[in-house]
Amino acid sequence: MKLIALDSSGLVAGVAVLEDFNLLAEYTVNYKKTHSQTLLPMLDEIAGMTELDLKTIDAIAVAKGPGSFTGLRIGSATAKGLGLALDKPIIEVPTVDGLAYQLFGVQDTICPMMDARRGQVYTGLYHFVKAGEGYCFETILPQCAVSIEEIIEKCNEQGQKTIFLGDGVPVYAEKIKDLMRVPYEFAPAHCNRQRAAAVGALAMQYYKEGKVVDAAKHAPDYLRLSQAERERREREQAHGTN
Amino acid sequence: MKLIALDSSGLVAGVAVLEDFNLLAEYTVNYKKTHSQTLLPMLDEIAGMTELDLKTIDAIAVAKGPGSFTGLRIGSATAKGLGLALDKPIIEVPTVDGLAYQLFGVQDTICPMMDARRGQVYTGLYHFVKAGEGYCFETILPQCAVSIEEIIEKCNEQGQKTIFLGDGVPVYAEKIKDLMRVPYEFAPAHCNRQRAAAVGALAMQYYKEGKVVDAAKHAPDYLRLSQAERERREREQAHGTN
Repeated sequence: MKLIALDSSGLVAGVAVLEDFNLLAEYTVNYKKTHSQTLLPMLDEIAGMTELDLKTIDAIAVAKGPGSFTGLRIGSATAKGLGLALDKPIIEVPTVDGLAYQLFGVQDTICPMMDARRGQVYTGLYHFVKAGEGYCFETILPQCAVSIEEIIEKCNEQGQKTIFLGDGVPVYAEKIKDLMRVPYEFAPAHCNRQRAAAVGALAMQYYKEGKVVDAAKHAPDYLRLSQAERERREREQAHGTN
Repeated sequence: MKLIALDSSGLVAGVAVLEDFNLLAEYTVNYKKTHSQTLLPMLDEIAGMTELDLKTIDAIAVAKGPGSFTGLRIGSATAKGLGLALDKPIIEVPTVDGLAYQLFGVQDTICPMMDARRGQVYTGLYHFVKAGEGYCFETILPQCAVSIEEIIEKCNEQGQKTIFLGDGVPVYAEKIKDLMRVPYEFAPAHCNRQRAAAVGALAMQYYKEGKVVDAAKHAPDYLRLSQAERERREREQAHGTN
């Protein structure tokens, strides 16, 4: 089982190639360039380096959202294009799940947060729990768009240490400091942003469970309306047309 | 504080650029090409993608060993060359510590193992322990070259779950299965091999503690004699010349 994984949901652009339990290649860039300029050249780069024949992959994994609307569209369009051209299915990984999954084996509350603007974060709560010999990755609160105060309250309710990660952390560091009543820590640099390899590793599990979609049917999951849609809806409601 | 991190100690070639708490770019390849063909082009690639002026970095972090002798020499020669040319210090990170550090927040026994041939593994034991609010990365057994039986016995002695990672795991999976008496698990694909970003994140801490060396003084740490040295020593001992 071999797959390509893509994550362009946030400021990070990431691509990876995985085969079974092995990460064959990964390329991650957290820099100001837009993903439309970076994602495909990055994939091309690692495919060249690993002499990957794209026809040999079994599926394409993609962080399906939430996240930056433009970023999600670039990731989804890339995954869809590859899926249609190669006739391979797509494995859709919720962005926040992918973020959390990189902290494999952490038993504390894992709280990824991406800055969603307008006082909100895209977030969720997760932990790894011991189940027999191995760890089971469990969702405590599925990914959602809520205020920073609301998610911090939920972290406090867990009554145990929280590990924060994601691009929302530097934005809301002061709020976290002020409102957290349980111990907390920020994940270090090598595991505090999106990683395509974590999306890919989670996608391997989904694939085994048959959780794939046709490339033609794949669409990003924005979780919220876009600014344009929201403003149109507000205008329509103000004018009583809807 | 900005640094470049390199890891070519095993089958994986990895380069990363970190700035304080941020991973700016990372490129990892786990493929058959020799590191002499990959490491510098990979660094050049991510430097280009992040418009990095090498003169602006503060230090070069490198996985100093143990590992493949050729791989270590390529990594060290690259780090040394950059350090001398840019007049920047080198931060030496023990390879096995770097491997273990990527499992941030894992409280079980972390046992990285690299295949060292001749029935041995390069290994060590680590865990993250709660110290106040944050986690402290602790070494239980410093990196060493021992037999697979010996390290498994030490894992059993810890009396708690062990997480294995590294290229020694597939080689010794059967031995592990036969000899382990405590629960154990293999780390998943996104965190089971060397990552330059983890070397870099650990190096950030070393830098703050002043643990740097002059580029001219840096040398890899092989932990064992090379095959050529070992055979010469055996010949000399057999002939009573030493």
